[in-house]
Amino acid sequence: MVLNMNEAFEILERTPKTLEALLSGLSEGWVTSNEGEGTWNPSEVIGHLIDGEKYNWIPRLKIMLTETEEKNFPVFDRFSHLKDYACLSIEDKLDEFSSLRKENIKKLKELIVEERQFELTGVHPEYGEVEARQLIATWAVHDLTHLAQITRVLAKRYTKEVGPWKGYLGILNK
Amino acid sequence: MVLNMNEAFEILERTPKTLEALLSGLSEGWVTSNEGEGTWNPSEVIGHLIDGEKYNWIPRLKIMLTETEEKNFPVFDRFSHLKDYACLSIEDKLDEFSSLRKENIKKLKELIVEERQFELTGVHPEYGEVEARQLIATWAVHDLTHLAQITRVLAKRYTKEVGPWKGYLGILNK
Repeated sequence: MVLNMNEAFEILERTPKTLEALLSGLSEGWVTSNEGEGTWNPSEVIGHLIDGEKYNWIPRLKIMLTETEEKNFPVFDRFSHLKDYACLSIEDKLDEFSSLRKENIKKLKELIVEERQFELTGVHPEYGEVEARQLIATWAVHDLTHLAQITRVLAKRYTKEVGPWKGYLGILNK
Repeated sequence: MVLNMNEAFEILERTPKTLEALLSGLSEGWVTSNEGEGTWNPSEVIGHLIDGEKYNWIPRLKIMLTETEEKNFPVFDRFSHLKDYACLSIEDKLDEFSSLRKENIKKLKELIVEERQFELTGVHPEYGEVEARQLIATWAVHDLTHLAQITRVLAKRYTKEVGPWKGYLGILNK
């Protein structure tokens, strides 16, 4: 299967609304629940997604798509959001993520004008040379990964409450 | 933690809108993608959720909450939706699920009027005696399980496309 740009957009466009539908207005108990020490609650996951919009996807794509000598990706700090957005409510974060995503889809549509550009490359600090098509696919899958993570974190809050059904609910055993 | 009825409702109420935000209008390629033979695509998962609303949660709760001799749950066919709704589009299924869920939350609010009822029991064909509180928690977690499943199915469509990022995206290795 060849990456279809419009299909990748479909996922990227839907993530903010999906997260809003799932999380907006939820009780504090849900929003602050996590999987134990060192794990993120749903609100912190949105913080991480905001950082991705700001510092990861588009900056890396620009390095790949523009004619520059420097093809190394800048380092992305996966933990800075924990302090940077500590005072923001989840509603604030959802709004911020939604508006950044809208801008970034617009930028992506401006940056990619022909299929050939999918093959342009950059240098990942760990994986070495990677293609623009792989980064765009990863962006979409990264959204889905974190949506699945939030879903799992919420579910685990009821691990004891489900009683004997626990064995049947795979999500509680991950 | 004691099951809080309103908090359980928060999850049950959000699922239809979350699924709509994620799936409505998606290309056929996404909606019909699955994890291999014998696994469900996102549209089939919605079919299963519809069956849960019709034949599982409320019928079982009624057995638990009403004064009846027969406390055994009827058998729930987890596969009938595959033929019963084979001709329905995903939009039809999302609408159907949404309207059944609305009715069922209304019924649930009518059925449960005091905390004491949480302790009433029924007999699960496999697990034996189970409490109403456990069934309600399971209903919410079951929603989240299938939301996570849909998310994983969608993500896996790009397993090859993400290239070297695969190792970093846990969802692709499940």
